[in-house]
Amino acid sequence: MKLTLLPERAQKPRSKGVTMVMDKGLGMSQARDLMSTAAHLIDFIKLGFGTSYVSKNIEEKVRLYQEHNIRVFTGGTLFEAFMVRDQLENYIQHIDNLGLDAVEISDGSVKIPHEKKCEYIELFSRDRLVVSEVGAKEAGVTMDHKEWILQMNNELEAGSSFVIGEARESGTVGIYSHNGKADNSLIDDILKEVPKEKIIWEAPLKPQQVWFIKTMGADVNLGNIAPFDAIPLETLRLGLRGDTFFDFLPDNLQHLKLE
Amino acid sequence: MKLTLLPERAQKPRSKGVTMVMDKGLGMSQARDLMSTAAHLIDFIKLGFGTSYVSKNIEEKVRLYQEHNIRVFTGGTLFEAFMVRDQLENYIQHIDNLGLDAVEISDGSVKIPHEKKCEYIELFSRDRLVVSEVGAKEAGVTMDHKEWILQMNNELEAGSSFVIGEARESGTVGIYSHNGKADNSLIDDILKEVPKEKIIWEAPLKPQQVWFIKTMGADVNLGNIAPFDAIPLETLRLGLRGDTFFDFLPDNLQHLKLE
Amino acid sequence: MKLTLLPERAQKPRSKGVTMVMDKGLGMSQARDLMSTAAHLIDFIKLGFGTSYVSKNIEEKVRLYQEHNIRVFTGGTLFEAFMVRDQLENYIQHIDNLGLDAVEISDGSVKIPHEKKCEYIELFSRDRLVVSEVGAKEAGVTMDHKEWILQMNNELEAGSSFVIGEARESGTVGIYSHNGKADNSLIDDILKEVPKEKIIWEAPLKPQQVWFIKTMGADVNLGNIAPFDAIPLETLRLGLRGDTFFDFLPDNLQHLKLE
Repeated sequence: MKLTLLPERAQKPRSKGVTMVMDKGLGMSQARDLMSTAAHLIDFIKLGFGTSYVSKNIEEKVRLYQEHNIRVFTGGTLFEAFMVRDQLENYIQHIDNLGLDAVEISDGSVKIPHEKKCEYIELFSRDRLVVSEVGAKEAGVTMDHKEWILQMNNELEAGSSFVIGEARESGTVGIYSHNGKADNSLIDDILKEVPKEKIIWEAPLKPQQVWFIKTMGADVNLGNIAPFDAIPLETLRLGLRGDTFFDFLPDNLQHLKLE
Repeated sequence: MKLTLLPERAQKPRSKGVTMVMDKGLGMSQARDLMSTAAHLIDFIKLGFGTSYVSKNIEEKVRLYQEHNIRVFTGGTLFEAFMVRDQLENYIQHIDNLGLDAVEISDGSVKIPHEKKCEYIELFSRDRLVVSEVGAKEAGVTMDHKEWILQMNNELEAGSSFVIGEARESGTVGIYSHNGKADNSLIDDILKEVPKEKIIWEAPLKPQQVWFIKTMGADVNLGNIAPFDAIPLETLRLGLRGDTFFDFLPDNLQHLKLE
Repeated sequence: MKLTLLPERAQKPRSKGVTMVMDKGLGMSQARDLMSTAAHLIDFIKLGFGTSYVSKNIEEKVRLYQEHNIRVFTGGTLFEAFMVRDQLENYIQHIDNLGLDAVEISDGSVKIPHEKKCEYIELFSRDRLVVSEVGAKEAGVTMDHKEWILQMNNELEAGSSFVIGEARESGTVGIYSHNGKADNSLIDDILKEVPKEKIIWEAPLKPQQVWFIKTMGADVNLGNIAPFDAIPLETLRLGLRGDTFFDFLPDNLQHLKLE
């Protein structure tokens, strides 16, 4: 019943080919549906931006995700909201109350000196898994390639388990231009200097997922995936959807490609 | 655990800062998920256009919404469908069978003399909460600003609890141009003559929500919100998402804004 | 309580006006919600592309759909994935394990000689309902009108119960141009030579649904409908949404149309 000639995919718990889903407020039935059909495909769930602050009754959902070996963290914007108000103690209370053992550190909205950001990463990584996000949420705010590479490597050294290439939920900033196209040259340069297993690329839109899979293979780390896109994403990774159908097939079958 | 420096938000039951969600056919699990996570954020639910006529098993859903202190009404298009066929008696039966105590009166598809529309509003408002919608669904059908203002005020006087600025589910007509941008000058003129607490602005698209919140504050009344956008919308109202992060922070923190 | 002057709609089991929904990975709660509200509106459910291969726990969902008299089949891309690997035996095992009694035969990604495709149709139609898809998934791959007509008629003769006009989930290829507009002249020519009751038009986007309903009437066969668009689609078919409100009303009411 198994298909042959599928690209290799790491299995959970995995250190490459991870998928990070963004949950903007699922209820328990939706969360149970997601776990029942797709838990094996999901490694991280981000409770997007400030949604964990305004939603009710999410503790049970967090536990359900964790029981399926998914690490859950709140969006970096909420970290920034507490930090800019000098309320980090309260932020820790908030994530402790939710039962989270992972955290995202970002500077997508607020200017934070890079050394300060690395201190936060070091601090939080003592007793939590830390992912940190590089790149601004604001359109038009750009950094040169050297700065991207420097920040990513510094943050990994400070204790981040993964660095995330910012794209927002819309997929139009950071590693993408305003029309949603990946910044090829930036990504190329980053890959020369930062271990690719340590980078999660935010890729909320299907053409972006296709681009990364075609460029970097089935086991690329992708983030900001909509919950019920986790299954369609896996079909792209395996070449079981039109867009990547022939990308993983051997040379002797390529002549069958429609074109 | 509470964040300081958040913009003030009215609590339910509230007369400003209301959110009206459009339900196009949720089932009971989805409705329970929505209530469990976001009932405190939702004031009205519209059963969009004719969906209540073709969907099965919605009485229980309506009761669930009402138990959470949400007023439920059918979309104005269904009112127009019954009215144009001279079947208003049957329309009342339809909404009574669903257990609705609110109603939307509109003339988005059918020409109705304005006095006649006000008579309907007066009639229905005797024993129901009435919201009435101003503006056409058809692209290219426009009214001058004075006419918008006159109709809104007449309808409020006739018994409407709120008037709704039409935008459709797509957000491309009425108070918006075809590209989805808000008609600034129209909205400005309306706000000079109509009490803003009495207007619900249809804002289905995120950039429209952001525009209204930036322009009119956290407690603006917004409508045609997709059900599972109620939580993301609240983060926009509170400045807990990148788009409005600095809009409600005091002057002494503005220098931290990334730009 | 019934509205008069509605266009006629065939009832289930029906041979025209059918709706085919594309399920990309619903869980059981979502599936139960869909059945409870909209089962009477749905004739076919396609488990889109390779999603049935990567999703867990879908046997129960398939049974639920079938209990509601819906024929379920896997997307043609999965057929092509097994076929190109010379694993058709395993494909049959896969769909038998899921309990499917219908199948889609397509050549949207892989070149298959047309006679060979017709042999597959004949083979599978011996003990299953077969639908077959005509048209390529690849943008820029086109066929002349005569070829569309020839293939459709040959496939019906070979045993297909319906032929499907390809559009992908995005609605931008096959019977549509890259901007999503229907290819009027192609569709016109097809309708002259192929029985319209035998064609399901993929129409994932609302403007496409509106176009087909305005052009071909309430009882046009439509496919690739998102699950929770089945109810909104029915309001379009019945003229209970702004877009088609006046399309089915008699001449003596047309003067009431806003324009």
